[in-house]
Amino acid sequence: METIDAACIDAMAQRYRANFINSLSGYKSANLVGTCNEQQQTNLAIISSVVHIGANPPLMGMIMRPHTVTRDTLGNIKQTGLFTINALPVSHYANGHQTSARYAPEISEFDEAGFTPLWENDFAAPFVAESPLRIALRLEDILPIQANNTELVIGRIELVQVDPAVITEDGTVEIASLDLAAITGLDTYHQASPIAKMAYAKADNPPTPLQLFNADQ
Amino acid sequence: METIDAACIDAMAQRYRANFINSLSGYKSANLVGTCNEQQQTNLAIISSVVHIGANPPLMGMIMRPHTVTRDTLGNIKQTGLFTINALPVSHYANGHQTSARYAPEISEFDEAGFTPLWENDFAAPFVAESPLRIALRLEDILPIQANNTELVIGRIELVQVDPAVITEDGTVEIASLDLAAITGLDTYHQASPIAKMAYAKADNPPTPLQLFNADQ
Repeated sequence: METIDAACIDAMAQRYRANFINSLSGYKSANLVGTCNEQQQTNLAIISSVVHIGANPPLMGMIMRPHTVTRDTLGNIKQTGLFTINALPVSHYANGHQTSARYAPEISEFDEAGFTPLWENDFAAPFVAESPLRIALRLEDILPIQANNTELVIGRIELVQVDPAVITEDGTVEIASLDLAAITGLDTYHQASPIAKMAYAKADNPPTPLQLFNADQ
Repeated sequence: METIDAACIDAMAQRYRANFINSLSGYKSANLVGTCNEQQQTNLAIISSVVHIGANPPLMGMIMRPHTVTRDTLGNIKQTGLFTINALPVSHYANGHQTSARYAPEISEFDEAGFTPLWENDFAAPFVAESPLRIALRLEDILPIQANNTELVIGRIELVQVDPAVITEDGTVEIASLDLAAITGLDTYHQASPIAKMAYAKADNPPTPLQLFNADQ
């Protein structure tokens, strides 16, 4: 193991440091964030910073950079108060990556990257038809992160679309059954397979699998 | 696809809803957070909410619940201003899960779950010897999330330990080479394999792989 200290990180070239630091958070879910402005101009952006905030009330968050390629997404969310999070399937990883290109605001990444906008239940932000796990959120709060001028955008879940066959008895969505992509760093896409579902951990019991999966599945 | 709306989510039993909503963020990195109090009583907690905040300055965050099993971790971070994030290898997924059991504050999860504390470079929080990717952080900020009384804990990276052979020319850490675990929901552990590393996306180019990986590796 090599030890890389703060001085060494400071001395890295900008792009090298971006790749290095972005890698340290390991596997991240690949999600497409769908928005539109008040003129219904749609926008789609791949995000790897979606994080669970809480189940009751049902909240999800994501880290946004106001001055980067996702500024249209953030602007739309601030205008309409609505956005969708659509899990990216492995089959569409290259399309998903393409949404990170810098398109002009009047160009829709849905068209350019090959995704189909889907409008549901009068919710005024577009879903992604190709996604097997679609979530509608209403803006709950935006927390400014002063340490680097980013923002934690928090949404409250209004609607979820998923195949009911992948929801297990205990409420868990079997993510592996949906063939979703995971991202590491800024640009590397992965597939994953389950090893084990574990019982709720207790201090006086050893770790106990509820289900073991075949490593080759 | 089934549509599950807010009323349906509200009506779920508490545990069912926790499983359901925790699933929606897809693949999450499995990390062990190492801390100690001012008496050097060590604590170790598995966390699936680590998120990249920014590369310059190098910042990582995690969502903490002040009134749950991770309250010792949060208390220690507030006391000492220091913590470590240690990526969980697939080989130790069951041990990692065991750290989520509710142990008394004077019991160290290092001992109970079978991990070895490692002290490095005078940094006053313990690393995990079994982890192939260890990060030391100094508390930068704690942002209260009023929507559900959780907190976004932000740390500034002071030190990283990793095998230099897995750092590529462009600074990326090849996470797949480290055999790290990913989590879905509250209790399911996964392994992952890379599909493709993509070139920086450009509006006037189609998506371009820089490297394609063997699906069976």
